[in-house]
Amino acid sequence: MSTNTRKVKIVGTGKYLPGQPISDSEMDERLGVAPGWTRRMTDVSFRHFAGADDTASAMGAKAAFEALKAANLQFSDLDCLVSASGTKEQALPCSAVFIQRAMGMEQSGVPAFDIDSTCLSFLAALDAMSCMIATGRYKYVLIVSSEIASVGMDWRNKESAALFGDGAAAVVIGPSGDGDPSGIIGASLRTFGTGAPYSEIRAGGTKRHPRGPLPAQPEDYLFQMDGPAIFKMASRLLPAFTDELLKAAGTRMSDFKAVIPHQGSAMAVRLMRKKLDISEQQLVYITPDHGNTIAASIPMGLHETIRTSRIGRGDRVLLIGTAAGLTLGGLILDY
Amino acid sequence: MSTNTRKVKIVGTGKYLPGQPISDSEMDERLGVAPGWTRRMTDVSFRHFAGADDTASAMGAKAAFEALKAANLQFSDLDCLVSASGTKEQALPCSAVFIQRAMGMEQSGVPAFDIDSTCLSFLAALDAMSCMIATGRYKYVLIVSSEIASVGMDWRNKESAALFGDGAAAVVIGPSGDGDPSGIIGASLRTFGTGAPYSEIRAGGTKRHPRGPLPAQPEDYLFQMDGPAIFKMASRLLPAFTDELLKAAGTRMSDFKAVIPHQGSAMAVRLMRKKLDISEQQLVYITPDHGNTIAASIPMGLHETIRTSRIGRGDRVLLIGTAAGLTLGGLILDY
Repeated sequence: MSTNTRKVKIVGTGKYLPGQPISDSEMDERLGVAPGWTRRMTDVSFRHFAGADDTASAMGAKAAFEALKAANLQFSDLDCLVSASGTKEQALPCSAVFIQRAMGMEQSGVPAFDIDSTCLSFLAALDAMSCMIATGRYKYVLIVSSEIASVGMDWRNKESAALFGDGAAAVVIGPSGDGDPSGIIGASLRTFGTGAPYSEIRAGGTKRHPRGPLPAQPEDYLFQMDGPAIFKMASRLLPAFTDELLKAAGTRMSDFKAVIPHQGSAMAVRLMRKKLDISEQQLVYITPDHGNTIAASIPMGLHETIRTSRIGRGDRVLLIGTAAGLTLGGLILDY
Repeated sequence: MSTNTRKVKIVGTGKYLPGQPISDSEMDERLGVAPGWTRRMTDVSFRHFAGADDTASAMGAKAAFEALKAANLQFSDLDCLVSASGTKEQALPCSAVFIQRAMGMEQSGVPAFDIDSTCLSFLAALDAMSCMIATGRYKYVLIVSSEIASVGMDWRNKESAALFGDGAAAVVIGPSGDGDPSGIIGASLRTFGTGAPYSEIRAGGTKRHPRGPLPAQPEDYLFQMDGPAIFKMASRLLPAFTDELLKAAGTRMSDFKAVIPHQGSAMAVRLMRKKLDISEQQLVYITPDHGNTIAASIPMGLHETIRTSRIGRGDRVLLIGTAAGLTLGGLILDY
């Protein structure tokens, strides 16, 4: 174990998917494409879409209660609640407040704020909040990633619309004891703002606003993505980024029991597998029955890896991915 | 100094106000109220409003360069850039990416993400990022709060519209050495989601969306505030909150050379002064020539306190305030 190990562990995880699964053939119909197109283009057989009654905070609350149960903790054991999502429920206040309310804990006083690094929000939050635990500022922290991608999808952009799914994941982290093998071994984030135009929702903030100098049009509230440009930039930057992360932590790709990538798309996951020499046994691939659930993707992958006993305590895990920004992120932990 | 001191210091600060100051008499005209109304109701003589060419990121970049200059550092010395604002430039990606771009540093790779606790975003970011410095994860971190309140003001709600101003503030933090008197002595955040409906922008996220089940109306993009309800809740909660924070840090109100409150409104600052026994000499009051600049308010107050030499190295400072949520926050530092 590196001397820089943060003695922080994953204590419990949870997941929530809204409504009924929507199959690839239903998507073919919605998109007006030939049968088989969605599956062939995306490898997504099923994704879930939030219904009219599902809010991001309600979904997040369900995942959070499951994570608390898995952690064998109560809400009152928590010192902090972080919403780590690429989308917000509303512009103000922050989403963590609504998750606190959706959990019925609005009188608890538990601090609630958001950390946003788009698709890597969970990774950025885990990195930051594990430092708050390591310094003794907090003991148990609940990180919730809850995303409703469907409301902002541009159905004219079929390749992009076919990729996404809605859902939430939650993770409780806490200190790991002296004899405990769990810890965070290394982490790295790198942001290259050159990639910002490749993946955007242009409205929703102060720049394009109904009353602003650049009045927002309805399509400005929809997600726009230049997949090939992101793919090109990510494939150029990922290998050196990953080498540096692993080297700094004194570990090698073969040391990982599981590699949990952000499930941006089947193509992005394949790119990562090939460029980074990840074996099929190591790769956690949840795209086929989730789609890309934005920042919920990595903690959902972590939840599934734990739930299916693919990893046990002490096993080394790599979380890795890219986010709109463009941001590259990786975090190494001994589960 | 408490044993829990984080050996982290404020290295440099900067501020930027857009355009020309807008006087209280101009505001009286805009609001269609009797001469003297704005000044009497808000104690704000001047505030600045961003023009058509001012984006939050461009304003943030200007404050950031000033903070770097004050810190005698280059951008290349930074390990991380955090946007700590209550408003976003656009829904996706996060605002820190746009600040990185506005600084011309989009190829730097410096990690860029957002921390949002509405008006207390700077305080929440300083709390979290100082832990990342204390653990050695990062060395120098740039925190930028940049806000354009004016675009989202509801001019029908005159009491609220008269309060706000636009602007940006930036702070560079870094490690403090062994013989250095600087450190963070204590911090506390408490969120009570019961207060969420008192201060909101309901649209801009996934809940009220042009294509959503609750279609967003133009007024849903405007800031709505129930000032009396916030005032009542804050005055009930603040005294015990502050007592607990000070007690945990082993310090008393009289120990502070400066108390820098969030400048929510003249009335909110008066409430805090009275309820918390802050003397006139201690109080940093920038409302009259800034208005409420949302999350930029506290770092602007810090910048003005340092710029005017009201504090020197080692002097004890209290940052304190309330935010939409409702969140209470306080942070004690030896400058």
